[in-house]
Amino acid sequence: MSSKKTVFVRLKEGVLDPQGVTIHKSLKQMGYDDFVSVKSGKFFELEIKADADNIDQMVNEVSEKLLSNPVIENFTVEKN
Amino acid sequence: MSSKKTVFVRLKEGVLDPQGVTIHKSLKQMGYDDFVSVKSGKFFELEIKADADNIDQMVNEVSEKLLSNPVIENFTVEKN
Repeated sequence: MSSKKTVFVRLKEGVLDPQGVTIHKSLKQMGYDDFVSVKSGKFFELEIKADADNIDQMVNEVSEKLLSNPVIENFTVEKN
Repeated sequence: MSSKKTVFVRLKEGVLDPQGVTIHKSLKQMGYDDFVSVKSGKFFELEIKADADNIDQMVNEVSEKLLSNPVIENFTVEKN
């Protein structure tokens, strides 16, 4: 048995999102004029041994240390 | 007023995920031995004019044409 968590990583408010901006421009060029904004983000689906200790704390730790850049990104964790 | 949709893009089953594999290896090297697997994905938060026609169909179209690569990726759409 294993436990699953998904970590969502988003750019902090005010940080430039060149990928989102580029996609928004491309959508306009393709004739899709109804999009107001596009924001990009990434996520990681983590499968964890069910008998691990302090899973929530461990997932928070690795999200801060490895999965996100705390200077420019926020993360949220969801249980699957 | 505007409508929001989030498009989640995942690699199809069986497609190599080098980013996920690398993160999994890094976690082991950092001493986190309780992770069974790591899968990476991306998402896009779309803000759409509320008076746009056929929003669901439009979001499916742009997800296929621009946001994902249908050869190697699947997408799902969630209403925010």
